[in-house]
Amino acid sequence: MVGKTIGTRLIELGYEVKMGSRTNNNDKALEWVKANDKKATTGTFEDAAKFGDIIFNCTKGEITLEVFKQAGVEHFKQKTVIDISNPLDFSQGMPPFLSPQYVNTNSLGEEIQKLLPEANVVKSLNIVNCEVMVNAAKSGGEPTMFISGNSVNAKEEVKAILGQFGWKDIIDLGDISTARGTEMMLPIWLRTYMATGNGYIAFKIIR
Amino acid sequence: MVGKTIGTRLIELGYEVKMGSRTNNNDKALEWVKANDKKATTGTFEDAAKFGDIIFNCTKGEITLEVFKQAGVEHFKQKTVIDISNPLDFSQGMPPFLSPQYVNTNSLGEEIQKLLPEANVVKSLNIVNCEVMVNAAKSGGEPTMFISGNSVNAKEEVKAILGQFGWKDIIDLGDISTARGTEMMLPIWLRTYMATGNGYIAFKIIR
Repeated sequence: MVGKTIGTRLIELGYEVKMGSRTNNNDKALEWVKANDKKATTGTFEDAAKFGDIIFNCTKGEITLEVFKQAGVEHFKQKTVIDISNPLDFSQGMPPFLSPQYVNTNSLGEEIQKLLPEANVVKSLNIVNCEVMVNAAKSGGEPTMFISGNSVNAKEEVKAILGQFGWKDIIDLGDISTARGTEMMLPIWLRTYMATGNGYIAFKIIR
Repeated sequence: MVGKTIGTRLIELGYEVKMGSRTNNNDKALEWVKANDKKATTGTFEDAAKFGDIIFNCTKGEITLEVFKQAGVEHFKQKTVIDISNPLDFSQGMPPFLSPQYVNTNSLGEEIQKLLPEANVVKSLNIVNCEVMVNAAKSGGEPTMFISGNSVNAKEEVKAILGQFGWKDIIDLGDISTARGTEMMLPIWLRTYMATGNGYIAFKIIR
């Protein structure tokens, strides 16, 4: 759902998008291609990795690293990887906690960067639902978005896309280790969602 | 510093405040008493615990549980304990991480409630600096504050005090286990502070 929402918005903005899946004949991916114009294509994770200059990681955190390995880590060299995933563990029910190996003194963003040392991983967007990701105003206001990454150029690329998604207040937190901060916002997002029943909440840094 | 800032504001609001310390002749506490009117007094942690109907825990997270034991857990029965502490571990330098035993699947707020089963622990205010705690507008806007606790009545008491501190947007997250969410906001607070240089930041939930 996240991949489809982001892919559709990117197509609307004029980008060519290849949706990667485990197989090259995934039903939902083919349906998405059909619903969009010829800029939308589909293929395996490897096909998508080879195709893209900019890659969105929209996989569930629990399988993210496995998917990157399946796609072939050699296909991400010098590319910008926008990581919007969260290492959520639903094994104990709602609300999920964060996977203990990726929290507090580590993060999934850092682990992806370690797995893809020649890629430029940028963590962003993981703190809102996918409709708000591609349309910040859908939150009901003008929220803040954070970016974390080691490459200044890649972060500029991501900032430009965030701007196209309607994000006007963007804070560059620094290197990819600052993804620890944004991944650890999931517990408050989840509990605020559970307390208010509103899944379109977003965060504004008042300053 | 946090205790002094909150104590002073409570005195201004007309409350009587006893500042607790390890000893009953702590220099900084005596200085604070001198700087305020006769509603300000000082004593040991035990004296303060016996005196207060509402107790603010303004101790460093690393010593919080020890301080409550020193104060005598029997003195907190039926009392509202406002826990504003954070279990920060500075042993590896800046930014600190959260103490592994109190993060993700646990929280310091919950541990305090376990230690004081007959008290009504309410977690709040831990996500801003102490000047913003007592004056929400100092953030530069109208931020959101969260409360977590098992007692509805105690949360109402805390909401009233938060109102006196200028907090107009208060979200009740639910029971004390939701303190996991607010304690895990410290990493993003710290990194936003480091990125912006602004220590008066606060969070607004856009909705």
